[in-house]
Amino acid sequence: MKSKLCALALLCGVGVCQAAADPTLSAWNDTAAKTAIEQWVGHATTPGDPAFIPQKQRYVVFDNDGTLWPEAPVTFQLQFALDELKRLAPAHPEWQSDPLISAALKNDIKTLAASGSKGLFKLVALTHSNMTTEEFTQRVTDWVSTQKHARFGCGYDRLGYLPMRQLLDYLRQNGFKTWIISGGGVDFMRVLAEKMYDIPPEQVVGSFSLSEFSLTDNGTQLRKTMNGAFYDDAAAKPVAIHLFMGHRPVAAFGNSDGDVPMLQYTSANPDVKTFGLLVHHTDSQREYAYDAHPPASGTLVNGLTLAGKYGWTIVDMKKDWKTVFDPALCPGNGTVLTTTTP
Amino acid sequence: MKSKLCALALLCGVGVCQAAADPTLSAWNDTAAKTAIEQWVGHATTPGDPAFIPQKQRYVVFDNDGTLWPEAPVTFQLQFALDELKRLAPAHPEWQSDPLISAALKNDIKTLAASGSKGLFKLVALTHSNMTTEEFTQRVTDWVSTQKHARFGCGYDRLGYLPMRQLLDYLRQNGFKTWIISGGGVDFMRVLAEKMYDIPPEQVVGSFSLSEFSLTDNGTQLRKTMNGAFYDDAAAKPVAIHLFMGHRPVAAFGNSDGDVPMLQYTSANPDVKTFGLLVHHTDSQREYAYDAHPPASGTLVNGLTLAGKYGWTIVDMKKDWKTVFDPALCPGNGTVLTTTTP
Repeated sequence: MKSKLCALALLCGVGVCQAAADPTLSAWNDTAAKTAIEQWVGHATTPGDPAFIPQKQRYVVFDNDGTLWPEAPVTFQLQFALDELKRLAPAHPEWQSDPLISAALKNDIKTLAASGSKGLFKLVALTHSNMTTEEFTQRVTDWVSTQKHARFGCGYDRLGYLPMRQLLDYLRQNGFKTWIISGGGVDFMRVLAEKMYDIPPEQVVGSFSLSEFSLTDNGTQLRKTMNGAFYDDAAAKPVAIHLFMGHRPVAAFGNSDGDVPMLQYTSANPDVKTFGLLVHHTDSQREYAYDAHPPASGTLVNGLTLAGKYGWTIVDMKKDWKTVFDPALCPGNGTVLTTTTP
Repeated sequence: MKSKLCALALLCGVGVCQAAADPTLSAWNDTAAKTAIEQWVGHATTPGDPAFIPQKQRYVVFDNDGTLWPEAPVTFQLQFALDELKRLAPAHPEWQSDPLISAALKNDIKTLAASGSKGLFKLVALTHSNMTTEEFTQRVTDWVSTQKHARFGCGYDRLGYLPMRQLLDYLRQNGFKTWIISGGGVDFMRVLAEKMYDIPPEQVVGSFSLSEFSLTDNGTQLRKTMNGAFYDDAAAKPVAIHLFMGHRPVAAFGNSDGDVPMLQYTSANPDVKTFGLLVHHTDSQREYAYDAHPPASGTLVNGLTLAGKYGWTIVDMKKDWKTVFDPALCPGNGTVLTTTTP
């Protein structure tokens, strides 16, 4: 029976039989976190094992900001919005008299943050709506191809965490379908997710608002609006998973309290032995160290408290990751380029 | 080069090289509609052909009501809502004094329809919200396992059009990813789509409203609400395609004017030679005949007018389909069981 399954696995290109000894997680140190991942995958993919999960149920969900790429000192998307605001400002002198927009133009994140969701919504409206979906894609593409992360000195599309990219590959090799469930905007992330993570647009779920369809002289257009805005964070993540993915996940990977409901929803899956993981940012040398008082977003307090109850694995970035960024993509590899504090 | 590609096609189980002569559309007569489908698929899957479409772009979208299954005399989902209302009515004596609900309980579709979206929204709210997502799935499952279509005498899950099920298979065999984009409710359709069409939940897009997440004593729950209700018809279909699928389709299949924007959006795809098709219900003997004055939904007037301009294929159900329903699933096979008029 086993040899037949191995043959099948080879035929399908799925490394079922070598799951527990897979060498592809080379950016992980040989610590408990890596062992926990490999053991769970091993059981989940071994037919006959009490924890075996049929391939049709192997849906796994990943947060993005702080889980697959950095979120400090501000999220990539907030940086994009701030840069766009500056790019567009010369054509909008009226923005100067708006205290919130004026603060954003001066990089005064504190004032912006103090305004709560109001300021953020305004900033997003000015930079993420009132253009076609194609125009928006082009703007993100242009931004990524010209801007670099201030601390790491590399393009944003080069800063996916290598251990997590390997984990995505490893899970896919074992028959899991990998999804992003993020507070980030879906149209923003989809420009980058396929290239960076090999995750196609339809498996990228995030905050969204509705576009508007119309006929044009030579075709059709979808124009981005702020209508029906949905912020995909915290308790909204399980809602989005149900709406977009339509399956209960068997594993969930996050890094902040905003991911806790998604992990709880996953852990409560009645059908299978699930897996939950939280990336703890403990590495001020190679990346950032924060939890209770994050630089911008990403508080991790409840998650650390609840991990024991739910059996979630905590990744200590400093101890568990051999490498943070892919040296082939970002030669600095997380070495401090400007400052160690966010 | 060709033999290498054929070998590759065989390895992947994709019949690229036999696309134009595929025998699997056996429920289609050898008329222009079938030829148009096979020719387009043949070109789209032949490397080097000017109309070749790389497999990564092969996303195709199907309407459901009236395209994959019947929508007369009322849609399956409206029938489910009416049946649920009756099942639940004994516990809700107050419903009797509500003119719209009282009309629905008496099968007075005319009064319900005359109220516009108001009546329908009320009916949906009473039968599709205020329960967990699992409870709703169970209700649909129970309904399908006990109820039969009044005219065809078979369970609703046996009434997928055989030619269209074959078309879905044929397209998938040729490397296309098949999606449903329907006015039907996403939670309702997902209970049936995998079994009937081999389309997984995440590729079923429809009308939706948001659920609410909470912790329970022994886990979590998602409770269906009417918040953020999105009606996925007409101009909303391209919006939903962009939001859920994140690709511009290369082919679209529908049957009513509510599908026209989806077909226009597809036809305006700047990257490829696209395909559009409208099922015209012309068969009062085996199914129903309607367009301008449909029994409940599904007006097809603009679509017929625009077909020439856009080069859409019109399927004349009576002439182009050898079989309507799968005789193995519904032995009546669309023979008139009660009446020929809806």
